[in-house]
Amino acid sequence: MPDMIKVSAQSLTTAVAGAIAGVVRDHGRADVQAIGASAVNQAVKAIAIAHGYLEDDRLDIYCLPAFVEVQIGGQERTAIRFAVEVLAEEGEDDEYDEDWEEDDEEESAGDSAEVEGEDQ
Amino acid sequence: MPDMIKVSAQSLTTAVAGAIAGVVRDHGRADVQAIGASAVNQAVKAIAIAHGYLEDDRLDIYCLPAFVEVQIGGQERTAIRFAVEVLAEEGEDDEYDEDWEEDDEEESAGDSAEVEGEDQ
Repeated sequence: MPDMIKVSAQSLTTAVAGAIAGVVRDHGRADVQAIGASAVNQAVKAIAIAHGYLEDDRLDIYCLPAFVEVQIGGQERTAIRFAVEVLAEEGEDDEYDEDWEEDDEEESAGDSAEVEGEDQ
Repeated sequence: MPDMIKVSAQSLTTAVAGAIAGVVRDHGRADVQAIGASAVNQAVKAIAIAHGYLEDDRLDIYCLPAFVEVQIGGQERTAIRFAVEVLAEEGEDDEYDEDWEEDDEEESAGDSAEVEGEDQ
């Protein structure tokens, strides 16, 4: 299970897009979380950019946004969580996702998935 | 071709969600456009809500955001356009979308697809 990619209002869209692309390449999917309009906007732009990055890998991503309740500093906040997944390709084996999980490169994923603006 | 659903910062998410659900039911897909962080945030929330509305119809929607350049008042602005589409269901006929296009109810779609906050 890859780490959640957390996006803030200050996150750089290209940095987040790179994180999304990396996690999707390694795990076949990614979860992206944002709280507040500015962060949600950055997340959406990052997903659009990541779509371009992953086209070269013949990975056609899409996303499904959902509301989730999260605890931040003891307070409950409503976040938007985007499930970023890969559309099945025409003529591709249906067990594509499972093949990814067995990939040797799996261990390179996820550990640096958190992207905050101040780190960039 | 259904009308574009235009979302503003003042759009009510449930009203936009209703418009998305209606267009998807009639056309099998919808396009949602937003300019600016607040409008993008409203659009994302509306898509999440519409996903719930359409579950009852066994329509599993997802979205793909993309950048588009639009002319507004003679000025070029960068908008986010969300292509909202329906995931192929397991065991479902692959020609599902085409069946929708031939549906008798098609004429009820799209005409009131623009949802601005002041109308609600």
